[in-house]
Amino acid sequence: MDHIDAYWRAANYLSVGQIYLLDNPLLAEPLRPEHIKPRLLGHWGTTPGLNFCFAHLNRVIKDRDQDMIYICGPGHGGPAAVAHAWLEGSYSERYPDISQDVEGMRRLFRQFSFPGGVPSHVAPETPGSIHEGGELGYSLAHAYGAAFDNPDLVVACIIGDGEAETGPLAASWHSNKFVDRRRDGIVLPILHLNGYKIANPTVLARIPEQDLLKLMEGYGYRPHLVGPDHQEMAGTLDAAFDQMAAYKSGDDDRLPMIVLRTPKGWTGPREVDGKPVEGTWRAHQVPLAKVRENPAHLAMLEEWMRSYRPEELFDSGGRPNQGILGTVPRGTHRMSANPHANGGELLEPLRLPDFHRYAIEVKSPATQSSEPTRVLGEFLRDVIAANPRTFRLMGPDETASNRLQAVFETTDRAWNAELLPTDENLGSGGRVMEVLSEHLCQGWLEGYLLTGRHGLFNCYEAFIHIVDAMFNQHAKWLESSQKISWRRPVASLTYLLSSHVWRQDHNGFSHQDPGFLDVVVNKKASVVRVYLPPDANTLLSVSDHCLRSRDYVNVIVAGKQPVLDLFTMEEAVAHNTRGLGILPWASTDEGVEPDVVLACAGDVPTMETLAAAALIREHLPELKVRVINVVDLMRLQPQSEHPHGMPDAEFDTLFTTDKPIIFNFHGYPSLIHQLAYRRHGHGHLHVRGYKEEGTTTTPFDMAMLNDIDRYHLVMDVIDRVPGLGSKAAHLRQRMSDARLRARAYTRELGEDPVEISSWTWPAAFSS
Amino acid sequence: MDHIDAYWRAANYLSVGQIYLLDNPLLAEPLRPEHIKPRLLGHWGTTPGLNFCFAHLNRVIKDRDQDMIYICGPGHGGPAAVAHAWLEGSYSERYPDISQDVEGMRRLFRQFSFPGGVPSHVAPETPGSIHEGGELGYSLAHAYGAAFDNPDLVVACIIGDGEAETGPLAASWHSNKFVDRRRDGIVLPILHLNGYKIANPTVLARIPEQDLLKLMEGYGYRPHLVGPDHQEMAGTLDAAFDQMAAYKSGDDDRLPMIVLRTPKGWTGPREVDGKPVEGTWRAHQVPLAKVRENPAHLAMLEEWMRSYRPEELFDSGGRPNQGILGTVPRGTHRMSANPHANGGELLEPLRLPDFHRYAIEVKSPATQSSEPTRVLGEFLRDVIAANPRTFRLMGPDETASNRLQAVFETTDRAWNAELLPTDENLGSGGRVMEVLSEHLCQGWLEGYLLTGRHGLFNCYEAFIHIVDAMFNQHAKWLESSQKISWRRPVASLTYLLSSHVWRQDHNGFSHQDPGFLDVVVNKKASVVRVYLPPDANTLLSVSDHCLRSRDYVNVIVAGKQPVLDLFTMEEAVAHNTRGLGILPWASTDEGVEPDVVLACAGDVPTMETLAAAALIREHLPELKVRVINVVDLMRLQPQSEHPHGMPDAEFDTLFTTDKPIIFNFHGYPSLIHQLAYRRHGHGHLHVRGYKEEGTTTTPFDMAMLNDIDRYHLVMDVIDRVPGLGSKAAHLRQRMSDARLRARAYTRELGEDPVEISSWTWPAAFSS
Repeated sequence: MDHIDAYWRAANYLSVGQIYLLDNPLLAEPLRPEHIKPRLLGHWGTTPGLNFCFAHLNRVIKDRDQDMIYICGPGHGGPAAVAHAWLEGSYSERYPDISQDVEGMRRLFRQFSFPGGVPSHVAPETPGSIHEGGELGYSLAHAYGAAFDNPDLVVACIIGDGEAETGPLAASWHSNKFVDRRRDGIVLPILHLNGYKIANPTVLARIPEQDLLKLMEGYGYRPHLVGPDHQEMAGTLDAAFDQMAAYKSGDDDRLPMIVLRTPKGWTGPREVDGKPVEGTWRAHQVPLAKVRENPAHLAMLEEWMRSYRPEELFDSGGRPNQGILGTVPRGTHRMSANPHANGGELLEPLRLPDFHRYAIEVKSPATQSSEPTRVLGEFLRDVIAANPRTFRLMGPDETASNRLQAVFETTDRAWNAELLPTDENLGSGGRVMEVLSEHLCQGWLEGYLLTGRHGLFNCYEAFIHIVDAMFNQHAKWLESSQKISWRRPVASLTYLLSSHVWRQDHNGFSHQDPGFLDVVVNKKASVVRVYLPPDANTLLSVSDHCLRSRDYVNVIVAGKQPVLDLFTMEEAVAHNTRGLGILPWASTDEGVEPDVVLACAGDVPTMETLAAAALIREHLPELKVRVINVVDLMRLQPQSEHPHGMPDAEFDTLFTTDKPIIFNFHGYPSLIHQLAYRRHGHGHLHVRGYKEEGTTTTPFDMAMLNDIDRYHLVMDVIDRVPGLGSKAAHLRQRMSDARLRARAYTRELGEDPVEISSWTWPAAFSS
Repeated sequence: MDHIDAYWRAANYLSVGQIYLLDNPLLAEPLRPEHIKPRLLGHWGTTPGLNFCFAHLNRVIKDRDQDMIYICGPGHGGPAAVAHAWLEGSYSERYPDISQDVEGMRRLFRQFSFPGGVPSHVAPETPGSIHEGGELGYSLAHAYGAAFDNPDLVVACIIGDGEAETGPLAASWHSNKFVDRRRDGIVLPILHLNGYKIANPTVLARIPEQDLLKLMEGYGYRPHLVGPDHQEMAGTLDAAFDQMAAYKSGDDDRLPMIVLRTPKGWTGPREVDGKPVEGTWRAHQVPLAKVRENPAHLAMLEEWMRSYRPEELFDSGGRPNQGILGTVPRGTHRMSANPHANGGELLEPLRLPDFHRYAIEVKSPATQSSEPTRVLGEFLRDVIAANPRTFRLMGPDETASNRLQAVFETTDRAWNAELLPTDENLGSGGRVMEVLSEHLCQGWLEGYLLTGRHGLFNCYEAFIHIVDAMFNQHAKWLESSQKISWRRPVASLTYLLSSHVWRQDHNGFSHQDPGFLDVVVNKKASVVRVYLPPDANTLLSVSDHCLRSRDYVNVIVAGKQPVLDLFTMEEAVAHNTRGLGILPWASTDEGVEPDVVLACAGDVPTMETLAAAALIREHLPELKVRVINVVDLMRLQPQSEHPHGMPDAEFDTLFTTDKPIIFNFHGYPSLIHQLAYRRHGHGHLHVRGYKEEGTTTTPFDMAMLNDIDRYHLVMDVIDRVPGLGSKAAHLRQRMSDARLRARAYTRELGEDPVEISSWTWPAAFSS
């Protein structure tokens, strides 16, 4: 226990040093103002509790030869995770200039929260972490994601009591209903009750202890209460790991969790300037704020640091003593060097069936229809079958609704709670994870990917906004990781957004929002990819591509309702490879400069564009129309902005520089302008898209409400191509009348004039 | 009880009718295919349980003369809420064409989920609702928001067991720690366990009952289990309301909640095509899907509808019988006509102190500095004091961090859990609501505003993305409400985003995201407003304006760190009223067309722009520079797109049509292009802003990392103004050198060359 205490004191010493010191790391001389950083930035409050956990978990790892990683929920406690990695030696292995000696310690201190140094939070830069923790709430979901399909792994998840107030964390406790005793590892939640957030007490620290215990029991755990005491913590961890072993062997049904009460800022200054600090919210950031200016504060800091007795902990060269080093696990059993926490080291490529096998046969374009996601479901079924331990499909209770149900031919939905005889496709070990929480789907998948596995998240398009913030944080993690040489690439996080804005037939306005794409494109071009395959074959090819990619966030938007088949598989691959292209069979420009360009992205807008082109072909045959479909949205950006960006010359040739471009877009029109505003022809670009008009109505009515329908597109063309004359004016009037007729028909009869999937062209209704 | 059962049967009958029937509402003749809607859209599964709740709650309202509203968490059960309002007569009061007779019933059925009719979900169109429920998770937070400061109100909150899996709902249970027994009303949660989501069982329905009870006790409630039985439900409600009375009078410490188990699709078809439906997930939407085509299904529908014995429920004219009408509360005690559910009816304007009183005295611009949010805090303190029952300030534990701490001079943070002697500004009845959950802050505030009160949500800028989806739904609610004549305007939802991207000194990359603005501007122009006041006085004036507004979402972005004071209060009001304007004292164009326009929006970008203008004035005095600050971002849009949009002529005069515009923006640069791409001068517009570069570093280093710093702006000017010659080239080199020097200085010493708040111009460091 002495060595554990020494490890803990050393970690605390190193944490304080990181927050405060520029120099004099071993206090070889009395502290002077110039040893202190000019700007004191960091979070002390949670740090000693984290260090306490690390010290004790290491003991268990060694005693039981346990494979273990940690998730540090209170990620603002960056100094703790960094100190831990340094004491374990892995920090110096990753960053040789931060050696495990006095000079390395000086650099370790100096770099923390310092310009050109490392962030104040646990971050991708921190060896041993897969969790940033700046935005609180996701630790427990990440922990479960990491534990899935790692049967021998324990994921120790330290949860701050502030974080525990967030919605995502509150939902995550129930993740234990989705765990398979044999296939999955074990998550050990350690709820760290230090009592305070930034400026307030925490709810869980101030409810009656009986309520807290019932809450944890209600979540399905066996809670253990621990105070700030080494013996207690060691005994409790032993009991918990014994229970975990009993659970694994089938002798127990419940898994443990630990409630650890420590004073916030434990071992720090008790009182500063007459106010209590240790054990209060005042310890949250930097307990002594004026160390450089105030000699009394400087003296308190020195006293505080010396209270850890550094001379007992480090030799004169700054190296941790043998007792401390003796508590450190070996090699990859060090949590800071565990390959699960640098998942790319463990990543193996998916075994992907040849997607050509699932192709729809297309004899001629736009003459038959398929449900794209249903076709994709067959591919995903075989992906799951071929990768029974490394691929999971996440979705908030929408996998069947999104028509991916073929996957249930090969697997179940994961479920370990009660089963009834009427249940279908439900069972322990299922590869499909369905819970009515987008936060959990996202958090689980992030944890799963960051530990070196693969997956896909299918979701209603509108509700993916629920995880905007989580997407942001994951994208930022990837952005940072790409710059860190020892972080190996991980599988991309791929979203399949279905049940999209244009086909919310059962639901309506609240389910209509294509704006996730706008959130996505704000992140760095090195990380984000957006695809809008217009039919089943392009969806297959795009999905295969995304599942092979690394370190990206891919967004695929594809419908579940029948749409026209446009491409043979060979054509689909070629079209996707180009990212956009002319549909020659729908165009009438025949190799010369067109009079107008009809561009489209997204399945429903594409069908309406094709219908509009057909109407023009029939009624204004002399007008030369070029139809362009865009699959890879990033092609629209300049080459300088995105690696997929199309060179200007190529763009100009395709879209012209001076002809009207009517762009029919799946999402909010402004996104197309945002991507293409630098293009030469931008002044002639006119975009149609979703403009927040909608309700529970028919698909074609929905298109008309937002002016993306075929008739309106023809009107747009006539309005923008100069010199078309009276025949065009007459056609424009007919189109306007056709809209009114269609509207009236639908309002009278409650259905569209024709089924959307048979919107062949010319449409009978428009003549 | 017979009347309650009759009410329930009638509501069920009306619900099935809405989903299926075009005509023959009373089944006066045998059902024929042409009586059936061609597209069957709606959700039956949850509906009978909702009807059961309405029937029984009405009994309590009448028995106890109770003021009560409901929140319908499973908002897809739209037919229930509509049936309830129709039976109560309020539907016909709001929509006279939907009369309470057979013709009205016919129309009621036909309009549901029908083109030109009403949405399938509970919606703004539904009398008695303040909650859409299409996106699940927010019912309980809305309920608490509605209950705050309504001491005599009971809010019955029906929570679906699917919804209960979401994060926001899981967090919301703890709202009871923030309730004041005397000042606030009571929320009665009714957890509706019908066992299934779309295609899966629900977690809470399949855990051991003991776990469920412990969970609810752990959340601090007294749970009551009820099965699908009238007597049980009535007895339980009586017990619950007795407990609520005891709580109110101080005789009990705990409030009740109810767990209601019913079969999903209760009273609907038991089995369809050989598969069980009632009591399974198959009852979720439309249990009989092929009624028009399949005579057997048609017969089953008729049998199902007749099982409610409509002839006992309605007279031949379609009017509900006296027994049913006798169960309906009177007037505004009908939940469907309660004014709390149309909050604008109860709304009283805030008593606002004169914001001029809080003005910073500014003798000359940009020569002193203030912390804008700290100044605003004094105004908010007095707003709270003047409106002790109608205004609340929400924040996720960041009110003091955002420097609004003056509010604690007049009030506490709301808290009814344990208190310790060391606690400060914490207590029952506090007007500041702090919980570490943006979801709860948002949900509480929405509930509070929609019931006719006022508030403000202060939040770290990056983490407001956590509620992107909730913002979307609230904006959609407002968009729809504006078109519904009987929905009276409510107070706007105003966000104050502080601790913004440019001043994350303690935190770093994970805390840097200005993209919420991009999400906001996708919503309808009739609803959204965005303001970036650059100093304390403009912040005061903008805030006063926002607190007076109605039916909007206002976003204010303002820093908490010291920034230069630019405007006297008189100037600030004028500047805000224009929304943007030239800063003549910073410009050198003196009434003629400038050579270059330096535009800016946001406090830090504005300070850097001013410094750049000063550098140019000093080193290139012959260059005519116009400095424009933008407060109201919507002014940049064309007049046709937003009511605040500036006419083109005015825009052209200000920004020129052919001179370079260097726009230094607070957020992602693309947003400015998105707003201004239609402007004549857009081809000359060059925007700087956040480009996802950042870490824990100094403020000026952060500006340099993203090229929004003064030096880079001068370089941008030199690069874009033609014909400046060798002197400019020399200056450009000096600027580039200055950047390198500043970078090196900061990396060496850990601080900026000068304090950001004293970045007066010319900066000493650049010469």
